Amino acid sequence: MKIGIIGSGKIAKVIAKACIQQQLEIACIYSRNVEHASVFASEINCQNIAAKMTAIPKNLDLYCLCVNDDAIEQVSLQLQVNGIVVHFSGSQPIELLSNQEKYGVCWPIQTFSENTIESLKEIPFLIQANNSDVLKHIEEFVSKLSNSIIISNNQERRYYHLAATIANNFSNHLYTHAANLLQKHQLDFKLLLPILNETIHKLETGHPYQNQTGPALRNDTQTIQAHLDLLENEPDTKALYQLMTQSIQKVHAKI
Amino acid sequence: MKIGIIGSGKIAKVIAKACIQQQLEIACIYSRNVEHASVFASEINCQNIAAKMTAIPKNLDLYCLCVNDDAIEQVSLQLQVNGIVVHFSGSQPIELLSNQEKYGVCWPIQTFSENTIESLKEIPFLIQANNSDVLKHIEEFVSKLSNSIIISNNQERRYYHLAATIANNFSNHLYTHAANLLQKHQLDFKLLLPILNETIHKLETGHPYQNQTGPALRNDTQTIQAHLDLLENEPDTKALYQLMTQSIQKVHAKI
Repeated sequence: MKIGIIGSGKIAKVIAKACIQQQLEIACIYSRNVEHASVFASEINCQNIAAKMTAIPKNLDLYCLCVNDDAIEQVSLQLQVNGIVVHFSGSQPIELLSNQEKYGVCWPIQTFSENTIESLKEIPFLIQANNSDVLKHIEEFVSKLSNSIIISNNQERRYYHLAATIANNFSNHLYTHAANLLQKHQLDFKLLLPILNETIHKLETGHPYQNQTGPALRNDTQTIQAHLDLLENEPDTKALYQLMTQSIQKVHAKI
Repeated sequence: MKIGIIGSGKIAKVIAKACIQQQLEIACIYSRNVEHASVFASEINCQNIAAKMTAIPKNLDLYCLCVNDDAIEQVSLQLQVNGIVVHFSGSQPIELLSNQEKYGVCWPIQTFSENTIESLKEIPFLIQANNSDVLKHIEEFVSKLSNSIIISNNQERRYYHLAATIANNFSNHLYTHAANLLQKHQLDFKLLLPILNETIHKLETGHPYQNQTGPALRNDTQTIQAHLDLLENEPDTKALYQLMTQSIQKVHAKI
């Protein structure tokens, strides 16, 4: 299976490295930014850089379009190839690639930073294709990278993307507030890692609604007030605390 | 070391089981609710139930006051003993026990549900005592249960408790919204577990501020609007989405 990689960002690197690990051939890489392409190529020890889009070989098996959401359609229009073209976006519809004959989507539910992911084996990939034959080929490709493949349409993928934004990006923002607060008082945020891990671990067997704990759930007004007093000089964190407390109490019908 | 356990809730059970694992003797258990005490005693295979508070032996080494925050002071006033008395609250001051001669605090930064914690070894315990000799004894006790002991005063412990509430309880509430949303569309929340785990994993080496990703951070108004459209029939989740997005943009100075 011969793979082309278009783009040189995090997802391009992650996919390229995973392909190489699985002895899939990276037959071509292309990036609009020539310097990025060159750094990327040397990182993965690949000599096949296309200097311009028209130099991309036309008969590779799969072209991974690893570009920003808002560039997918434009880049696809310029990409004149015979193989399957896939994008990697959680929020964008498959139809952005409809100028191609064979196309699909391949979205890993993961947040990538360079060099943090050892393996993609446990990462769920949502896949989609413009016909069942193309789907079979995409599935074959993804099965080399991951053991968790889910066939999903645009709408399902959009809901997963939204849920990931809420559960993951927003949680990380709460960690930011907590870490800033502890830092300000010379305290160690890392002491919270075991409790955060345990809460995720509990999700394996139960619904988070059932796992909810804390002063908001107990309607423990004394502790809530004590917390708000501690946040007297942190208006942003205090506002967030109040809103989350109200939201918990509303969803759990305490008020 | 002879231990008395006052209370029969989750923390009482967790501490008792950890003591037994470490061959510490549970010399007495007491619960205001006789039936709970009896179930608890049989669970840990302990025969030493005190039927009333005055029946609690006076010369044990350590009395673990595993009761609700708002009962600590009252129970301590009724507890006439010579050994060290400790409470297990993150938010309550050590002084609630000041009727005792020897007293302290021993707060594990963890959320306990029955039978989920295999070992306490990695759980940070914040400890405090009314004098250095008592502190030494509490430290000796906790060192049998955990490898992570931090000496902290009331105010430090309060900040950790507040930070844990923000980072942990509030995150779990975000998971609840995400899980409800996916459930409503017959989608599988468990597919988010790898990304949630990865985000916690990243906290081991970096500050969450640096790890922030997502449409709010990128000020990706198109994706934000698409998400809000998907939440048209979920006013509570939509409100939370908007508030978290604003908070991210404020803290990261995008607006």
